[in-house]
Amino acid sequence: MSIVALLHGPDRPGIVAKVAGWIHDRGGNVLHADQHLDREEDVFFQRVEWDVAEGGAPESEAGQFVSMARDELGMRTRVALADECPSVVLMVSKAGHCFHDLILRWKAGELRGEIAGVVSNHPDLREATEAYGLPFHHVPFEKETKPDAEAAQLAFIRGKGAGLVVLARYMQVLSEKFLAEVDCPVINIHHSFLPSFAGAKPYHQAYRRGVKIIGATAHFATPDLDEGPIICQDVTRVSHRNDVENLVAKGRDLEKIVLATAVRWQLENRILVYKNKTVVFD
Amino acid sequence: MSIVALLHGPDRPGIVAKVAGWIHDRGGNVLHADQHLDREEDVFFQRVEWDVAEGGAPESEAGQFVSMARDELGMRTRVALADECPSVVLMVSKAGHCFHDLILRWKAGELRGEIAGVVSNHPDLREATEAYGLPFHHVPFEKETKPDAEAAQLAFIRGKGAGLVVLARYMQVLSEKFLAEVDCPVINIHHSFLPSFAGAKPYHQAYRRGVKIIGATAHFATPDLDEGPIICQDVTRVSHRNDVENLVAKGRDLEKIVLATAVRWQLENRILVYKNKTVVFD
Amino acid sequence: MSIVALLHGPDRPGIVAKVAGWIHDRGGNVLHADQHLDREEDVFFQRVEWDVAEGGAPESEAGQFVSMARDELGMRTRVALADECPSVVLMVSKAGHCFHDLILRWKAGELRGEIAGVVSNHPDLREATEAYGLPFHHVPFEKETKPDAEAAQLAFIRGKGAGLVVLARYMQVLSEKFLAEVDCPVINIHHSFLPSFAGAKPYHQAYRRGVKIIGATAHFATPDLDEGPIICQDVTRVSHRNDVENLVAKGRDLEKIVLATAVRWQLENRILVYKNKTVVFD
Amino acid sequence: MSIVALLHGPDRPGIVAKVAGWIHDRGGNVLHADQHLDREEDVFFQRVEWDVAEGGAPESEAGQFVSMARDELGMRTRVALADECPSVVLMVSKAGHCFHDLILRWKAGELRGEIAGVVSNHPDLREATEAYGLPFHHVPFEKETKPDAEAAQLAFIRGKGAGLVVLARYMQVLSEKFLAEVDCPVINIHHSFLPSFAGAKPYHQAYRRGVKIIGATAHFATPDLDEGPIICQDVTRVSHRNDVENLVAKGRDLEKIVLATAVRWQLENRILVYKNKTVVFD
Repeated sequence: MSIVALLHGPDRPGIVAKVAGWIHDRGGNVLHADQHLDREEDVFFQRVEWDVAEGGAPESEAGQFVSMARDELGMRTRVALADECPSVVLMVSKAGHCFHDLILRWKAGELRGEIAGVVSNHPDLREATEAYGLPFHHVPFEKETKPDAEAAQLAFIRGKGAGLVVLARYMQVLSEKFLAEVDCPVINIHHSFLPSFAGAKPYHQAYRRGVKIIGATAHFATPDLDEGPIICQDVTRVSHRNDVENLVAKGRDLEKIVLATAVRWQLENRILVYKNKTVVFD
Repeated sequence: MSIVALLHGPDRPGIVAKVAGWIHDRGGNVLHADQHLDREEDVFFQRVEWDVAEGGAPESEAGQFVSMARDELGMRTRVALADECPSVVLMVSKAGHCFHDLILRWKAGELRGEIAGVVSNHPDLREATEAYGLPFHHVPFEKETKPDAEAAQLAFIRGKGAGLVVLARYMQVLSEKFLAEVDCPVINIHHSFLPSFAGAKPYHQAYRRGVKIIGATAHFATPDLDEGPIICQDVTRVSHRNDVENLVAKGRDLEKIVLATAVRWQLENRILVYKNKTVVFD
Repeated sequence: MSIVALLHGPDRPGIVAKVAGWIHDRGGNVLHADQHLDREEDVFFQRVEWDVAEGGAPESEAGQFVSMARDELGMRTRVALADECPSVVLMVSKAGHCFHDLILRWKAGELRGEIAGVVSNHPDLREATEAYGLPFHHVPFEKETKPDAEAAQLAFIRGKGAGLVVLARYMQVLSEKFLAEVDCPVINIHHSFLPSFAGAKPYHQAYRRGVKIIGATAHFATPDLDEGPIICQDVTRVSHRNDVENLVAKGRDLEKIVLATAVRWQLENRILVYKNKTVVFD
Repeated sequence: MSIVALLHGPDRPGIVAKVAGWIHDRGGNVLHADQHLDREEDVFFQRVEWDVAEGGAPESEAGQFVSMARDELGMRTRVALADECPSVVLMVSKAGHCFHDLILRWKAGELRGEIAGVVSNHPDLREATEAYGLPFHHVPFEKETKPDAEAAQLAFIRGKGAGLVVLARYMQVLSEKFLAEVDCPVINIHHSFLPSFAGAKPYHQAYRRGVKIIGATAHFATPDLDEGPIICQDVTRVSHRNDVENLVAKGRDLEKIVLATAVRWQLENRILVYKNKTVVFD
């Protein structure tokens, strides 16, 4: 049974030696270790994955590791056991490309975790969701009923015990209150190469500006729209021959791959957030 | 002897037939033809290159083509003869990577035209310029003396009969007056993926935002800083491991290739500008 | 109603003028035209798409165009009417990623044509096929029964009136007889950057060679295995950290996009084959 | 003063802890550490860079590290001091693009090491070499005089104390004898995406096969032509519009960047070779 730990905190000499020594001394075996030092901020980051000694108790080891890292190294640590299988809730609107892509990858074994349900403000993807054997929670709303709708969404998400919410082309802005209460990371896909073309209709904006390359960006949702920490981006070339509809079509392939990559990294505990940026131990 | 014509104007039926027929009837032979229809604006664009009939007078043919296109098709046309060799002036500051790259490509025969001289507000590249056998015009200035300096720059550019000015990492903003008077296209390289990170220190901006991809953009200079029509863009991946210095180094390779590509296209008469966008017949 | 024509034949002066003039004289309106001259072989290629005059008979116009191009220009021409909707048959084995990808794109309106059925030598994708509302034809075989199996496959394909067969990770070699009799193009996806790593287990070959980039290739199937005309290729970076399983996973995304692109181009009549190479009017 | 060590050997538990602990116990400070485990071969690889304790003797520390790694961990280790500046010899023929690119990068401070001279079988680049202030050694030869020529080349290389030889589009095959005697790594740039199109005229081969992407490959030269361990590759898209001359021009940009990247990695001690593959700690 293996443990993954993600640490970060002020740099000091000997962290690598201490971590590796602690694991080795307790009979553990390091499978992967990757670290990063932000020299500007003098912050140390590490992802370490190790097998617990034969007969060891992984949960107890993980807890003791967190205590050691805090008390002896001044590090904040997140740990996960390899057999944890976090519950994932998708939020969607009408577009189905990211929705199908994530569910098919999950069914093919490309993604860890367990997709537990789908929330939508539109009924369009109900049939497809149910054909995949998943619960579909339709929460339509108007501007005035948004607070109630968000409460219903949160209730569904909590009911599924979600460890991750994925906005798979969910076309509404989440309120600050929702983000404060959801109590798990929320990953969004924005259909532009951020920070270019934040906000509405990014492909139309890109077309008007006459850019020669378009992109997609997966990021953690924060109260500042499209301003959260960027996890993954990808781009593709376009030309004067491509109208807005072409950009939308080309963009769909980017969105699928970028969002699936970000979700996979998150479920494999590869992402640390610091100062509105991400460290991705890929 | 061949002619290149770049046409654009309101779409109407039969333009392709008319142009091809006109050339064919006069004994010409079409070498390349490429067209584009902007359906939103209903504007037709064409680049056509043809060999004039044996014994024909290319300059006269070119002139008659322009008249025909205007009178019979309502098109604005720019023509160039294949043996034209426009004079090019480079404007630089301290950084030499685009400067060396353009001159070496020109000497290797990769670029048409004739690099006729280098203008700089710093003396750093004098020796290298002169080693290439080119005149170097050093025009240092302060804020107050900028108008005089720009007059001196314009005099040099006019003296060389420049058909193109290339800002090869020239780190000053050109005044509206300069751009109005220079009387030839001015191509700039901006070291970001526009419209992200316009203005000063784009790599620092990119680092702070935590983007996962950086880029470079070649565009025509206009009075709106970094807002001119985009000609060419390219990008490369970065990660949390890359500090600002790394971004700068990775960016240099992008800048060289993007600027050289834009300059080559311009010298081969492949670019039409319309509504702050470019049509590039590559 | 519009017509697409794909022409090729020995170059001669005036082809563009003749084609454009013929269409214009009959009241047609050219929507797109793109041409290519292979200077080494002196062969001219063109794709032209036009609206027939109000009240015209597209089928008759198309037929007359083919005659004109043959008799007056010496060109071989393939024509298609815009409302044609060719029937497509997928051949699969066990892997479902290209299968799902093509069907979902088709259902989302990204692909022309009509997927008419799925043939497989394994039963694995039966349930998914039928959930999509498509007929699934399971034709298992051993080495000795391959001729009979291919006859059954051909009967199914003919019964669907297929205008295109897509090998969506079908893991068997088609016999020369099958390819001679199928009477429509067959597009295959090979999971390497051809000509590297033709044949079996290309990701294992790539891993052993230690390449830093892997790819996928869509090509027309011919009797020479993996030697047919290449339609589309794409690549992605890998490193020493990627084991064979990682290469397979990364490759799946390439395979989906490359195969879907090739199928889309074929269904939009954008591909001309000449001397085991393709001209793609994208 | 910092030290870089590159280790590899059979995996065993506790290597990371031992290495980090050894450095820490002697007052050193780890700057970077990166490791890789080849699970198929059970071989462990590590690159570690550390600052020696104030007042420490780097050369002695480096030597003791090698002994410790051998005796206590069974690892083979290569060490380098941060202020080492290996001498580099370029071998060229007629083409100058990689030659200029490497020398300009080196002069701009992008490459460590010291370019000490240029050997060529043609006189073409003599003037440019000398303008850069570098010695040019012209060693022309015929098939019969190749052994003597190689002896002269080796004498020049040894005379410069070369720690790296770079074949910057040197268009001759080096003999097995030369490679056995040169006693330092030799990096070559091959102008194709290996293993496709090994041998002569790869752009012609690529053109004939009709590939849609071309590439360049930097690899260590070994007696098996174009079969040595691959260090770096890059690719670019081409189409039916590109003739061989276009491929050659597009390829030059790839060759420059790929070769410069490989040379930079080698000079920064980032490359480990194992079983004809490379581990690159980028």
